[in-house]
Amino acid sequence: MSGTLVIAGLGPGSDALVTPEVSAALAEATDVVGYIPYVARVPDRAGLRRHASDNRVELDRSRHALAMAAEGRRVVVVSSGDPGVFAMASAVFEALEAGPEGWRGIEIRVLPGITAMLAAAAAAGAPLGHDFCAINLSDNLKPWALIEKRLRLAVEGDFAMGFYNPRSKARPEGFTRVLDVLRETCEPERLMIFARAVSTPDQALRITALKDAAPEMADMRTVVLVGSSLTRLIAREGQAPLVYTPRSAPEGRSE
Amino acid sequence: MSGTLVIAGLGPGSDALVTPEVSAALAEATDVVGYIPYVARVPDRAGLRRHASDNRVELDRSRHALAMAAEGRRVVVVSSGDPGVFAMASAVFEALEAGPEGWRGIEIRVLPGITAMLAAAAAAGAPLGHDFCAINLSDNLKPWALIEKRLRLAVEGDFAMGFYNPRSKARPEGFTRVLDVLRETCEPERLMIFARAVSTPDQALRITALKDAAPEMADMRTVVLVGSSLTRLIAREGQAPLVYTPRSAPEGRSE
Repeated sequence: MSGTLVIAGLGPGSDALVTPEVSAALAEATDVVGYIPYVARVPDRAGLRRHASDNRVELDRSRHALAMAAEGRRVVVVSSGDPGVFAMASAVFEALEAGPEGWRGIEIRVLPGITAMLAAAAAAGAPLGHDFCAINLSDNLKPWALIEKRLRLAVEGDFAMGFYNPRSKARPEGFTRVLDVLRETCEPERLMIFARAVSTPDQALRITALKDAAPEMADMRTVVLVGSSLTRLIAREGQAPLVYTPRSAPEGRSE
Repeated sequence: MSGTLVIAGLGPGSDALVTPEVSAALAEATDVVGYIPYVARVPDRAGLRRHASDNRVELDRSRHALAMAAEGRRVVVVSSGDPGVFAMASAVFEALEAGPEGWRGIEIRVLPGITAMLAAAAAAGAPLGHDFCAINLSDNLKPWALIEKRLRLAVEGDFAMGFYNPRSKARPEGFTRVLDVLRETCEPERLMIFARAVSTPDQALRITALKDAAPEMADMRTVVLVGSSLTRLIAREGQAPLVYTPRSAPEGRSE
């Protein structure tokens, strides 16, 4: 008898951002599978087996989850944020497609979560309030040339942008190049937001103009948002400033 | 004494997708403000005033909410999906910026929600599993030329795409033109998903190749997703097919 596989998004960190749908799936699970810090967010209880694995073993983890579901278990793969945004859902489907035919009979559901980019945007105001792009800056799985191409096209289209995985210890130079491209193509006052560990006790939000942005403002726990040419800052006495992108683009402005 | 203003995302429709953070804010509110069907999603209770208004009066609604908060009330503005994605947050900030100086002292929080594009993606698999764009196809507030420009650049960058407000009764021709541009620039087998009323009892999901897509597949309750050139479909006997975009882009593929 085939079990079930749920791929669930835990949101960016705070339990107050976990949807009731995800909480219900976790309450019914026999097995929880995921990267160590995400599995640690699921409370232990009788009848629940927790399978925590290290980073960068997404396909192994996916095969393990699928194999357990095929044996009849109720498996939940946990992701941070939304599982469909630079997270576990695609890895599970890659493993499913390459795996035994029998795995295709497993009942699979993806449960959306609050993705870091949108939690960061909310914390700053509404910087993605108009058309926007999400770009993963890690070149682990794609060539750098493609990242830069997408970045230039997004700027040309005057999209607001959200960058995931902006800067790893192993390859800090990538984000430096991203800032160089932005400086070459955008005005110096373009608004940026560095949002670290959003919704956790470590949350740190930094709003800056592009001309004052520095590579060190980002690390792997940071999501970086870049406004469009129309993004504005509202200064407020005694309250944090708000960054937002208006709903309208005037005739001709971005042509 | 100044009150508080919360701009909260109710998610795409199902109560199981409302975050605990949003539920808590609604439980503490004195006033709920929003478009009629969204206010209707907030249960009535003693001590809660509900202010429902029609569509297309976003700025009036925002000023009303700000004015009540300035008088000391605990006001929640409700949006569908995520308030920062083509929803109420930017409208409130436009009203705030243009309004009385005193409004800037109001404590304001934006609470993220599950946006329709990501709920639709989860329902279909993981079609936005790599870099993606969100584009509002309504030309109410921006020129059509900008929509088409962004669409062409997003295709050139081989982004997956999510389209909001694809087709209104008043201007059905816009989405026909979007399909024409896609047919001119993408291969005929490019995968598309028409996701209507996601997470509600009316949910309808249609997966199709671009060559078989028709304007009538979309209406204002539909979010349309377009895969990248790498997006794949996994056929499954006895289970719904899954659409996903792999995490990797091979060297040179999209150059």
